Formats: sequence, structure tokens, C-alpha cells
Amino acid sequence: MTRRHDRAFVRTFFTSPTAVEGEDSAKMLRRAAQLRGMEAPDVWVPDNEDATAPGMREEGIANIIEVVAAHGADVPAEIHPRVVWHRDDPATRAEGFEQIRRVAASEAAPHVDGFVIPEVGGLDDWKKVDELITLAENEAGLPTGTFAMSVIVESATAELALAELRDAIHHPSNALERLFLLVDGEVDYTKDLRAITPTGALPDWPELRHNTSRGASAADLIAVDGPYDDIRDLEGYRERMVDNRARGQLGIWALTPDQVVTANEAPLPPATGEWLLAVDGEQVPLTPEDDGERFVYEGERVSVADAEDGYRLRIDGQTRRGRSSRPPRRPVGERSRWSGRPSSRSTA
Amino acid sequence: MTRRHDRAFVRTFFTSPTAVEGEDSAKMLRRAAQLRGMEAPDVWVPDNEDATAPGMREEGIANIIEVVAAHGADVPAEIHPRVVWHRDDPATRAEGFEQIRRVAASEAAPHVDGFVIPEVGGLDDWKKVDELITLAENEAGLPTGTFAMSVIVESATAELALAELRDAIHHPSNALERLFLLVDGEVDYTKDLRAITPTGALPDWPELRHNTSRGASAADLIAVDGPYDDIRDLEGYRERMVDNRARGQLGIWALTPDQVVTANEAPLPPATGEWLLAVDGEQVPLTPEDDGERFVYEGERVSVADAEDGYRLRIDGQTRRGRSSRPPRRPVGERSRWSGRPSSRSTA
Amino acid sequence: MTRRHDRAFVRTFFTSPTAVEGEDSAKMLRRAAQLRGMEAPDVWVPDNEDATAPGMREEGIANIIEVVAAHGADVPAEIHPRVVWHRDDPATRAEGFEQIRRVAASEAAPHVDGFVIPEVGGLDDWKKVDELITLAENEAGLPTGTFAMSVIVESATAELALAELRDAIHHPSNALERLFLLVDGEVDYTKDLRAITPTGALPDWPELRHNTSRGASAADLIAVDGPYDDIRDLEGYRERMVDNRARGQLGIWALTPDQVVTANEAPLPPATGEWLLAVDGEQVPLTPEDDGERFVYEGERVSVADAEDGYRLRIDGQTRRGRSSRPPRRPVGERSRWSGRPSSRSTA
Repeated sequence: MTRRHDRAFVRTFFTSPTAVEGEDSAKMLRRAAQLRGMEAPDVWVPDNEDATAPGMREEGIANIIEVVAAHGADVPAEIHPRVVWHRDDPATRAEGFEQIRRVAASEAAPHVDGFVIPEVGGLDDWKKVDELITLAENEAGLPTGTFAMSVIVESATAELALAELRDAIHHPSNALERLFLLVDGEVDYTKDLRAITPTGALPDWPELRHNTSRGASAADLIAVDGPYDDIRDLEGYRERMVDNRARGQLGIWALTPDQVVTANEAPLPPATGEWLLAVDGEQVPLTPEDDGERFVYEGERVSVADAEDGYRLRIDGQTRRGRSSRPPRRPVGERSRWSGRPSSRSTA
Repeated sequence: MTRRHDRAFVRTFFTSPTAVEGEDSAKMLRRAAQLRGMEAPDVWVPDNEDATAPGMREEGIANIIEVVAAHGADVPAEIHPRVVWHRDDPATRAEGFEQIRRVAASEAAPHVDGFVIPEVGGLDDWKKVDELITLAENEAGLPTGTFAMSVIVESATAELALAELRDAIHHPSNALERLFLLVDGEVDYTKDLRAITPTGALPDWPELRHNTSRGASAADLIAVDGPYDDIRDLEGYRERMVDNRARGQLGIWALTPDQVVTANEAPLPPATGEWLLAVDGEQVPLTPEDDGERFVYEGERVSVADAEDGYRLRIDGQTRRGRSSRPPRRPVGERSRWSGRPSSRSTA
Repeated sequence: MTRRHDRAFVRTFFTSPTAVEGEDSAKMLRRAAQLRGMEAPDVWVPDNEDATAPGMREEGIANIIEVVAAHGADVPAEIHPRVVWHRDDPATRAEGFEQIRRVAASEAAPHVDGFVIPEVGGLDDWKKVDELITLAENEAGLPTGTFAMSVIVESATAELALAELRDAIHHPSNALERLFLLVDGEVDYTKDLRAITPTGALPDWPELRHNTSRGASAADLIAVDGPYDDIRDLEGYRERMVDNRARGQLGIWALTPDQVVTANEAPLPPATGEWLLAVDGEQVPLTPEDDGERFVYEGERVSVADAEDGYRLRIDGQTRRGRSSRPPRRPVGERSRWSGRPSSRSTA
């Protein structure tokens, strides 16, 4: 199979309870499906695990199917329901398998991009998830790899697996290329490591976040930080995002539309790669200026100049106009060969 | 073999010199064997390595045998002598083997719970320790696995091995299931990494402590931090414990009875797992409240209410009284399937 | 092959552009080759990668050959040119191979100690480098292992490889024993992890530096931190070195002779090992005092005393004088067996 997802970034991972007490148990789902604009997350997660009471999860799957079938085509977000799973409990895993099967066989399936799996353990446990998704896909007549797979890293064992992903992900016996998001789950991670703090606040876990970001980078996946529980403290949420971004963890969990908006307002990372100019059949990389935002061709046959309405490009005497835009990212295999510091800064 | 140790936590790891200058070279050992109450550690380590001068270690083993045979039955702590070992020096390893053999064959053996091995290297070095303990057990007519094995992590190589423990510990060619404590030894670790600080103080080594705690969690072992040298600074010792606990490293080395007392006063970690209520043959998990200390049944057939003298439990109309206590921990295989945040906090 | 390098420490890793615009494109190289005294680095790196514009790298190799052939015999530093390489780009790797071949076959070769390889990926990528160096050595009639190999760790994948070095380095199918320096490259590492900071400043990457130091310690290599771009801020450079040393990363990149001087002024790490006194055929380790700088023999047959002009050593009545000096380091296999805290500090 080939890699399914093509997103470069996921800034917002928004969870909604799948079933709540009351007359319309799907009301939270329905409301979430209608978020648009800055309130729309990159990834929407109908959460049939921790956000939904255990006794309501049967109904939660029915609600997911109903709401996603009805609204999925219009939802701007990718849709990745979270099902139940536990590395140490086969009954929970069997339950998770049933939840995946039900969704995969339903009329919601065409709008479902993947599944989020909590409480995974070592890599062998990840492979069990992958296999059960494959069986569900097969049963529903869908090709292997139809659904992406994202995991919540909330155990020491899962953290250790992050270092093995790069070697394992392309193994032909599995379909682990369906992997998509690596999401930290600090609440249960803290329990798994039996960590305690005087105030009951979660530890910072910088090493976990580093290892998640590193694992994502090495395996071409996307790292997402866990939930920020104090939903009124948007300033704290912003600060957490700044700290995360400095580790390369560009996405964050959102529990409320306000958190989604806050995360969507965060700056996008700079484009990787470089500007390449094809001049008479030769590719010439442009030199980034100090601000990292502008790129200059150093040579005589081409000039790029800012203009009020965009830029002016002169090639061997001919001038063209254009709008400024971010350079296209190049595939990994063609990465910049001159991505370091320009010679002018290295002086002897 | 099956895992030997059944402790969930070790808060105090207390070392005593096995032989000191003077008329009664065993006097420190004898005094330590009589510590009781808050001065009694969880694990007592007659230290025939760094705490005892090289020239007195022969006598140190004789002292261990004498004192542990005489007092071991009454010592409340587990008893784990530390012998000599070095990953890079076969002569030291041979000496450590002899020390283990002497203890294993002695009348102290029934009171000895395991051995502490310093200066281990990579996993192959840990296997050498394990094998020599097995040989000593066999020679003494004891079943394999009689003695636990704890290691001092004081080299980069040993730190790297922490990530491999989970996969190696159950290998049937070895008896590594005897592993018990993973103890950081920052003094020699600092030398091994050739780190230096302006004041000569030890670096903080947050990554080492994280990796030790993570390795312990993944392999179901117990993480213990190294010695705190300024034995008069109990406040600093307390702060170190707070920092350790936020990493899941719940135990700490103690060099003095005062440090033991200070460590024994530290809060115990919360019980993991959850309250389960069996109602008409069905197990219903209770919902933790925000403070994490109270658990509420959400349903109609049962109610739990605080009362002055404990609690009142009403089941289908019948009321019972009881004292509050910590819920029993459930074995890992039956871990909570709903251990996350309750639905009321996840709002859309 | 046997390990080629015998340095215990590298404090300064100084890069120079190999070709710059102007009449004498080799002028920076020539100037760097003449640095002496405190301005002379431990390792000098004619940098044919990021410090030199892509279009000038052909000429850069010619300059390296010319300048190193002319001045190499007198340069006090080890000489390790940096060539181009990229884990994701075979064209760049082929170019790097050509650069190595040209240098290896040139009259500069006798003065070249090794090559620095940027942008390496996983261990298989490191093996490609090693093999191409071996081919270049063979072609030039030089024995395998003539050239050392140092890498710039500037990707998540390379960071992960650091944990595997110890097991891989002695594999007989390769010549990875030529490995020498592990150098962090935070600029491109930051890009590889897609990390961003509000100011554009580089993140601190404590975990990367820890893992580099740990990998170096485990595989008996040398860890070097990356460039410090603000070349006028020598105080900040000093602070970075203090922070690095507390992690065991004793070397640092230098972009200017001023940075070289600053790094050369930094304190040397203490000698490892211990003083051993051979007394009547027996080796007695000396006891370090609290400051870690003085060592005391505890016994009756020998005394060491400070004197104005050095020390006075009395052995069984005979007194000798000598100058204070650092104790010789002992080979790893004979490491101190009593390197911990003296018994006087462990009290019960």
C-alpha cells in the first residue's frame, strides 16, 4: 500500500463525546459537525473512549454513523473517530474491533478518514490494531489502507515504540503505512509512569514530547500534544503551543471550539525546502535572507523584485509579475542540498 | 521462573558500610539492622562496594553474613547487599561472583532478598550478572530466581539498556525476571559521560531519570534515584524527591537514617486502577471526581455518601457503613478501561 | 581495523569556507591554516558544505588540496574536511564521494585525518559513507581506516542512530571503527523536526545534546555541540559551553578564531581514573578529597605532601620531590574499582 495521508500539518485535533445524557444523545456530535471557519479543526475526533461514558458507547457508535453519514460530506475537517483499546485488556480490544467494524461497514465509511486508537503498548500491539482495521476494511469491501490509524501515546511502552517506527512502518507483512498522528496523552501517561505532583497538575513531560516529535519526524508522521484541561485558560493553552512548537510538535488536542480557534490562530511553520529556479535547464537554489522569509537569486540572468501587487521576475530581460506565495514543498527525496547557513555568516 | 518481587513501591533504598575501621568493624551494619518504624527503609543495602574501603570488603562479606543471620529475621526491610562489579573489569566481576557465592551459601541466605549490582554495562553485562547469581543459587541448592537483582545505572551503556528491558526480561535462556530495582548512580554516571560543572555539583540529569522511570514502567520494575550527598540538607532532599516523583521515580537512595525518615514521610502515590462496583453480577466502574480522590457511581441502584464516621453505601435500598480506604489495586491485565477524563469536561 | 583516533577530548571544531568570492578564493583556508597557539583549534574543518556556496565547491576541493598540501604538515590541528552528503539525495551523496576521492588521491592526503559528513540519516546511511570512504582509500592505495569519519547529527533519524552505535561500531563487515566525532547541527535539526520559535532563535534541544553525549560515551566517541551563530556574543558562547559540559558534551563548533580562543580557554575535564600507588608490589588507590582535586594515601608507608615547588613523596622513609600534574588516565579496562564516594561520607 502507499501512504494514505498527504497532510503536512495538523494543528487541531478536536474531540467530541459521541453520546451524552439527554433526549438527543448525539447533540454534541451534531454541533461539532457543523463547526466552520476558524472553529473547524484540521482533524475531528468523535470520541467513543474517554469523552463518552462506558455505558453509552454502543449508542455512541450509532450516533457516529448517523451524524457522519448525514454531515460528513460537508465537514471541512478530516474525520477520525476514537474507539476503545487497551494494550493490557483483550476484552477492550475486542470491543474496539467491533466499533471499527460497525463504522467501516456503515454508510458513514466514505467520510471517515481513519481511527484513533488509545492506550496502545509496544509495536506488536500497534500491529494488532493495524490487522483488525485491515480485517474490518476487507469485510466492508474496502482496500487495505483505506483508513488511517492514529495512536495515543500514553504508556512508557508506547513511548519506546516511537523509536522503532521508522524501521517498522514499511514492513510488507503489515499495513502500518496507514499511520498518521502520534498524539501524546499525558493524563494516562502520568498514571502509567506513576508520577505524582504536589498540586495534582500534570508533569511537563518534555522528554515524552521530544520523543514523540522525533519519532514523527523520523517516520514522516505528525506529532500532536495532548489535552489542555483548563479550557478557560486560553493564554496557558497558547503558551503550551509555543512550547510544543519549539519541539516540533505542531498540533494540539482541543476540547472546545474556543481551543480550536486559538490553535488555528497559531503561526504556521515555515515552508521547508527551498526555492529552485530552473534557468536554461539548470536548477539554481535561491538564497534565503536572514529573516527566512525572502529568497534571493544570486546570479546575473534572473532577478526577483518585490512590487506592490506581488513580485516582478526578470529572466534574461523578460519581466513577469506574480503574487507572493509560499514556495511549494518538495518531496523528501529532492530536499535542499544547501539548506544550511549562507557563507556570509561563516567567517574566519 | 516467575517474578520474585511483589512490591508495588520502594521509597527508601538505604546503604550501610559493611566494614569500618575500629574494634567492631560490623558496628554500622548492626546499627542499621536495628532501625525500626520511620527509620526502617523499604530496602536495606549492606554496601560492600563504594561505602566500604576496598581493603575491608572481605571482612565486609563476613560481617553481612554474621549480622544478617543474627538479625535478618527481625529486620522489617527487604535485604539486598551490594557487591562489587564492573562492566570493564573481569577481576572485579570475579570478585563480585565470590561475594555472591559466599552470601548465598551462608546461613544469612534465607533473609537475603537479592543483590545490588553496581557499574553494569549493556544488556549482555546484565546477563552475566544474572548467570552468576544463578550459578551461586544452584551451588547453594536454591532454586533459580531465589535472589532478586537490582542494578545501579551509572553508565551511558546501562542507560541505553533501559530501553531494551521490556523485550529481554522474559527471555527463557536467562532469569532476568529476577530484576527488581533500577537505581540511578549519578556520581559515576557523571564520570562516565565526562560531564563537568563549575561548582563540582552533579548535573541534574533529567533525561537519565526519565529514561530510568520509563524503563521501569515498561518492564514492571521500580525506579530509584541515587544518593543525595549533602546529608544535612533535608529540605534539598525533599525537593529532590518532589522532582523525582513528577518523573515517576518514586524511590530514593538514603545515606542516613534521617534521610530514611524524610523519604518515608513522603506521600504515597495514588492507587492506580479504579473502583469497581459489582451490581447484580455486572462490574460498574465508579467515576472519579475532579480531585481524583472521590469516586461516584453514576446510576440508580447504588449510592455512596460520605458520613462523619466513614461512608454510607446504599444498594437497592439497603444501607451499609464503612471506613474510607484506598481502593485495592487491580492487576495490570484488568486495568481500567475508563481511566481518562469524565465526559463532563469534554464539551463542544 | 583498529580504532584510528586516540584523542580523549576535542574542545574546538573550527570550520572555514573552502572557496570565497574574490581574487584568491582560498584566502580563508590559507588564513585558517596559519592559526597557532590559542587560536589553533583541536580539529580544523575546511568546510566544503554549508560554509561554501554550492557553485564554488569544485574550486573548494582544489583549494583544500592546495592549502593542506602546502601547510598541512605545520598545522597543529587535526584536519577533517567537510564534504557534501544528504541522506535523501543520491546526487549529493555521489558528489560527496567524488570530493572524498579527490582529496584521498591528492598530495594533501597525508595531512588529512578524516572527513566530516553532514546530513546523515539512519545507521544504514552511515554505512554508505563508510563504504565510500573505504573505496576512496582503496583507490588511493591507503589502508582501510586511514581516514576518520565524523558526522553531523541534524535529523531525527540520525539522533535515533546514536543509540545503536555501540552495537554497530565493531561489526566486521564495515569499518565504522573509523568514527570519531558526533557533532550536533541544530540549524538543520530544527528544520528536520519542523520546530519553530517566536523569535526565530534555535530551540535548546537538551534531549538531542544528551543523546549525543550518551551515544559518544557508550561508543567511545567524542561529542561536539553545533555552531553558535552570534559570533560577537562570546559570553553567550561561554555559557553554552558550561551548559554543554554539564551534559558531557565537551567540544563545540567554532565559526571564528575568537570562538576558538574562547573554547580553548575553557577548563579541561578532570582526569578519569584514580591515582594508584604501587607499594611493595600492591596497588593502593588514593582517596580523593572533597574538592576532587587532591588525593590522599591512607596508610602508613607512604606520604604525599604539598610543597612550594610541587610535592614531597615519602616512601618508607625516603623523600622525593616532584611537580604537580594530572594523573595519567588509565585504559578503560583497568578503570577504578573504587571510584565512588569514600566511606567517611556514608554514615549510618
